[in-house]
Amino acid sequence: MAQLKLGMVGGGNDAFIGGVHRIASRIDDRWRLVAGALSSTPEKSKASGAALGLDADRCYADFAEMAAAEAARPDGIDAVAIVTPNHMHFPPAKAFLDRGIHVICDKPLTATMEDAQAMAAAVEASEALFFLTHNYTGYPMVRQAQAMIAAGEIGKLRVVQVEYPQDWLTIAQEDTGLKQAEWRTDPARSGAGGSIGDIGTHAYNLACFVTGLQATELAADLHSFVPGRLLDDNAHIMLRFDGGARGMLWSSQVAPGHENGLKLRVFGETGGLEWCQEDPNYLWHTPFGEPKRLLTRNGAGSGPQAAAMSRIPGGHPEGYLEGFANIYSGAADAIAALRDGKPLPEETALLPGIQAGLDGMAFIAACVQSSAENAGWERL
Amino acid sequence: MAQLKLGMVGGGNDAFIGGVHRIASRIDDRWRLVAGALSSTPEKSKASGAALGLDADRCYADFAEMAAAEAARPDGIDAVAIVTPNHMHFPPAKAFLDRGIHVICDKPLTATMEDAQAMAAAVEASEALFFLTHNYTGYPMVRQAQAMIAAGEIGKLRVVQVEYPQDWLTIAQEDTGLKQAEWRTDPARSGAGGSIGDIGTHAYNLACFVTGLQATELAADLHSFVPGRLLDDNAHIMLRFDGGARGMLWSSQVAPGHENGLKLRVFGETGGLEWCQEDPNYLWHTPFGEPKRLLTRNGAGSGPQAAAMSRIPGGHPEGYLEGFANIYSGAADAIAALRDGKPLPEETALLPGIQAGLDGMAFIAACVQSSAENAGWERL
Amino acid sequence: MAQLKLGMVGGGNDAFIGGVHRIASRIDDRWRLVAGALSSTPEKSKASGAALGLDADRCYADFAEMAAAEAARPDGIDAVAIVTPNHMHFPPAKAFLDRGIHVICDKPLTATMEDAQAMAAAVEASEALFFLTHNYTGYPMVRQAQAMIAAGEIGKLRVVQVEYPQDWLTIAQEDTGLKQAEWRTDPARSGAGGSIGDIGTHAYNLACFVTGLQATELAADLHSFVPGRLLDDNAHIMLRFDGGARGMLWSSQVAPGHENGLKLRVFGETGGLEWCQEDPNYLWHTPFGEPKRLLTRNGAGSGPQAAAMSRIPGGHPEGYLEGFANIYSGAADAIAALRDGKPLPEETALLPGIQAGLDGMAFIAACVQSSAENAGWERL
Amino acid sequence: MAQLKLGMVGGGNDAFIGGVHRIASRIDDRWRLVAGALSSTPEKSKASGAALGLDADRCYADFAEMAAAEAARPDGIDAVAIVTPNHMHFPPAKAFLDRGIHVICDKPLTATMEDAQAMAAAVEASEALFFLTHNYTGYPMVRQAQAMIAAGEIGKLRVVQVEYPQDWLTIAQEDTGLKQAEWRTDPARSGAGGSIGDIGTHAYNLACFVTGLQATELAADLHSFVPGRLLDDNAHIMLRFDGGARGMLWSSQVAPGHENGLKLRVFGETGGLEWCQEDPNYLWHTPFGEPKRLLTRNGAGSGPQAAAMSRIPGGHPEGYLEGFANIYSGAADAIAALRDGKPLPEETALLPGIQAGLDGMAFIAACVQSSAENAGWERL
Repeated sequence: MAQLKLGMVGGGNDAFIGGVHRIASRIDDRWRLVAGALSSTPEKSKASGAALGLDADRCYADFAEMAAAEAARPDGIDAVAIVTPNHMHFPPAKAFLDRGIHVICDKPLTATMEDAQAMAAAVEASEALFFLTHNYTGYPMVRQAQAMIAAGEIGKLRVVQVEYPQDWLTIAQEDTGLKQAEWRTDPARSGAGGSIGDIGTHAYNLACFVTGLQATELAADLHSFVPGRLLDDNAHIMLRFDGGARGMLWSSQVAPGHENGLKLRVFGETGGLEWCQEDPNYLWHTPFGEPKRLLTRNGAGSGPQAAAMSRIPGGHPEGYLEGFANIYSGAADAIAALRDGKPLPEETALLPGIQAGLDGMAFIAACVQSSAENAGWERL
Repeated sequence: MAQLKLGMVGGGNDAFIGGVHRIASRIDDRWRLVAGALSSTPEKSKASGAALGLDADRCYADFAEMAAAEAARPDGIDAVAIVTPNHMHFPPAKAFLDRGIHVICDKPLTATMEDAQAMAAAVEASEALFFLTHNYTGYPMVRQAQAMIAAGEIGKLRVVQVEYPQDWLTIAQEDTGLKQAEWRTDPARSGAGGSIGDIGTHAYNLACFVTGLQATELAADLHSFVPGRLLDDNAHIMLRFDGGARGMLWSSQVAPGHENGLKLRVFGETGGLEWCQEDPNYLWHTPFGEPKRLLTRNGAGSGPQAAAMSRIPGGHPEGYLEGFANIYSGAADAIAALRDGKPLPEETALLPGIQAGLDGMAFIAACVQSSAENAGWERL
Repeated sequence: MAQLKLGMVGGGNDAFIGGVHRIASRIDDRWRLVAGALSSTPEKSKASGAALGLDADRCYADFAEMAAAEAARPDGIDAVAIVTPNHMHFPPAKAFLDRGIHVICDKPLTATMEDAQAMAAAVEASEALFFLTHNYTGYPMVRQAQAMIAAGEIGKLRVVQVEYPQDWLTIAQEDTGLKQAEWRTDPARSGAGGSIGDIGTHAYNLACFVTGLQATELAADLHSFVPGRLLDDNAHIMLRFDGGARGMLWSSQVAPGHENGLKLRVFGETGGLEWCQEDPNYLWHTPFGEPKRLLTRNGAGSGPQAAAMSRIPGGHPEGYLEGFANIYSGAADAIAALRDGKPLPEETALLPGIQAGLDGMAFIAACVQSSAENAGWERL
Repeated sequence: MAQLKLGMVGGGNDAFIGGVHRIASRIDDRWRLVAGALSSTPEKSKASGAALGLDADRCYADFAEMAAAEAARPDGIDAVAIVTPNHMHFPPAKAFLDRGIHVICDKPLTATMEDAQAMAAAVEASEALFFLTHNYTGYPMVRQAQAMIAAGEIGKLRVVQVEYPQDWLTIAQEDTGLKQAEWRTDPARSGAGGSIGDIGTHAYNLACFVTGLQATELAADLHSFVPGRLLDDNAHIMLRFDGGARGMLWSSQVAPGHENGLKLRVFGETGGLEWCQEDPNYLWHTPFGEPKRLLTRNGAGSGPQAAAMSRIPGGHPEGYLEGFANIYSGAADAIAALRDGKPLPEETALLPGIQAGLDGMAFIAACVQSSAENAGWERL
């Protein structure tokens, strides 16, 4: 399969997520990074591009220059990855979408609902595809869980428990010069959500993705425990889903002992499932009245959906980067199909896109609104 | 140490919890069961008593007869264990308390708030002691956690996550003739709480016991998933504690894959703790910024509080019955001290009593009220 | 069921295992401790007996006096528990066996092979029953594993991996005045085996019990890592079983991180089983080609053999003391049947007795001999 | 950093390990695959190369043609990956080494000792570097363990327990047409070792790498459980190390429930370490007398050695492919340094090379010889 050409906005030297996107794009050899506007100043952008081995003429000063130039090249990029802080998702996305260049955007969609709606309009108006890297949906055993529920293996759903605890913001890291902490705790760059935007949206997206349910209303109790912090660092949320299921969502960045503890449990009339991001090659399945079963990625009991997202046999653990790569490779499949005039692959429907982005923004807004009203129910 | 004499009300042949109380009372050789009104009919009571090896003249037709007779005997019982369904806690308790006989009562305190207040009055009026078997507080590593938090080892508390999922009521067991299910799902015998009364009170009690905090308000979303069930089988609850900590409590009896999954996590400014009832010999402790530590009962890192509740070395697991026995042995220590005119042991203050019972009833009432108001905040 | 009367030899104040036997005997209310020769001097014996609430006239100066007196009493003990160091198992056992009093003896059988053979002769000559407390065979999930293998659920056996690591003798505890360490590292009191006698025999017994196999030969590499220690504190052993299965056994008391890590894995042509003593309520079962299943004591997937050894529902953990109690209660069943002229219960065949004791002694002897010959194969 | 150019011998369409090498080479963007002789026939080689996007003129009919052509090109490959069955490691390796092209070779080194010695001679005679993909040494927490032991954190070593159980050959997969099974069970292609060659060498290498010890002698009991299988599918091995440590190694491919269960435990005078390949982001460390600590990759308690091998923060799991990539990136560092006339990086010394290969061959030979002599001790 021929490689697609990738550009990147943001993701310069000291960013975490830019490097993740680059590795993810490489793992299956479906993408080659050829262009970038990688940092906030022209100098840093060019230096970062050179360090990554980009041709000098494709190291751009800013996204606007890049969008114009790449659109004009006969060998211009097929897609752009946008890995800037939240408030800088929409402007570059629009620039590329307007030129028909596909977009792979980090989550949450934007910093404001206004931008989110504008993003949706830009996607609607463009012929290009838009992907949002809710990467946890790319884990093989998450796909396995999704498929099992869709197939009715645990019956009609009743209870959904999802949590995403971390501990790195237990202290005021934002006062220590840590960039990752600075922008995430700054409403101007992050938007109205702190932990709920950064990780709560992942948890919410995962719960909806796996269950196939839509939340209809929520009640949220947001709080900042670290003095002076402007955005929530802990959120307790009750959820009600269409069809009658109920749930809880906990996101926290002040929970010592949890590094990146995204965990989902779903209970239906005939069984239960449990998956933890930190041990992602396992999926617990309990058919009610039978012993718990430990399904393993590409091992006995895991099906074609997980296998399609796997590269190596069971017992050889895959991790975060491979799950992320599944989003990139799925995007490549879709873009290649579109380019070749073929129908989109069936699997494209499982990739997070603009709707997942809007759902996440609605989730953040509802949490903030509910919390402002002392955790009253807010419709989604 | 001389043994104390125990009587029992309820706990006949097919009861679960009666047998537990009897084993718990025996483990440390502090009690001898000598009298009982074990079943709901005189015939069954006598048969049950005979099966347990009680003297025929101490197998009573009912609790009233037993209270009168035992109070009159020079070798009468020191204490009575009450292990009937909730609505039958208060009448026998009062009968024994009024005669100065100590009471060890199963939880929750009563089926109604009215009975609970009458119980409190009876305890107040009596010279006898009253213990409520919130047995999970008797686990050594629960005591370890309590002591660590009291000593400030994880700093000022911020977040309390407690859950108690089970799966046995996933189907309508109450329609299959299972007695345990019948009365627990019957408002007349259980009171207003289903899962919140049966297991939610345990979770709530455990959270308060370990943290030393009082909840000040809660918002509860109760639900019955099994058609026709009159009491909640799933409860999602948000909590606010004095001092500013916030928490979540989930109790469920429709969560396949969870047998008896009581689990508590507490997070403070400088660390976190985690304990699970199904693996009770372990306590996870994370000092923020350091690796997680696995403390083991009577092993390295566990202190005198856990050791005082342990019988055997680390690595030799103790379980539910030994934790329960710690309540019984603690009660024996207190009763013996009282009898001998000595001050109550310091440890007696950690034993669950009438206040824990009232707190549990207030918890149930607040949950029911909040849920009736669509999960509005209810003060405790 | 009427209680049986128990006496005890050894097990005075600062002993570990005496207290375990006493609790184990009480748990199911099948035994009452009424007599003892609990310590090595008459004064200490009487003080220990008084502390345990024994009648003064049944606190004996030594086992010989006790055997004679109890045999002469109309209400004499039904059985005696022998919980002395290994070299003091045979003399009291013989004294009681010769008088027709049943014996429950701690393991290993004796300190010397000579004593072991004399013990076997004494058992043979007596009408009394003899039980050896290889208590780990009393765990419900060990019985479950034994039953599954006997029923062919994992097919013809191929590989048996058993290990029993501890860490308490990592340093020279025997030089610190710790009695438990002193006699266990003293050949005069322990016999020729150090870790292999103290814990290796448990591992070996467990492997044979669960698999139903006999080992036919072994090769052992014993070593003492702590300077000055006279007996092995680490043993690496290869095993060959009748029928062609092969195995490894590792016992160690110098393995930091292992408190009491007895663990057994058995692999057959169609499946595998795994059980760990420190988490005894679980049994992993993998049918080849299917997902691993986590069987729980008294939970889904565990059968009547485990249920018969359990007291409380799944999810309510039982532990070491309950497993030990199963040996005591099984012994009571057998003794009561014999007394009543009934056939021994079927389950009696699963209780460890003199043959298990002789097997353990043969194991120790073969290990020592093999190791002396540089780990050459030694027949069993 | 400029990319290096990689060629590949073997690894065509249905091979497992070829794909792994390709992904591993891509992850850090240090290598670009540009040439290959990927299959056993010219036609398949060319088809496989085309499928991977290689230029047609660099899809070679066989390794000899490739070595000659690439050596002659000004833009010829920097290194070749050899991922053929064992008996086909030496011929291509020699062809490339002789032309000064660096070699990255799969393990074990060769199928025969004769070839191994010839390989060593070829490496010796060449200016090119030789790497052997004992990939498990590339896991960050394996490096962490190695560094801790080297720093004395668990004291002088006493006991080394290593095991590598799998279950995929529980049945005769070699009779079902599965290529992976066919050549691994064929002495002509695999050499004298079955499980010991395929996975036992990994376990042995890992134990030596982490401990820094050399084994001086071993006693091995090899066995084939599956009827008709010519090579061992289970191996029990006792080890003695220089300095006095002792160990056990178990490799098995007939252990249902184990997918790829490589596990290492090392015990020293002051502590213990434990690592499992299936959960590779964790390392257990017990300082004797203190609670167990769970070190996590890039998390609290893990040091610079692990960090240097990591790409993403703790809690975001890395897996098998990233560990494998560390070998490839380390090789790239070394090759680039050599090319640039710089000293080899310090880390190069940790990469497995010809000595590790010879050690593995000596291990296989000693196992086979020992087993032929009924598990007598064989010097290494």
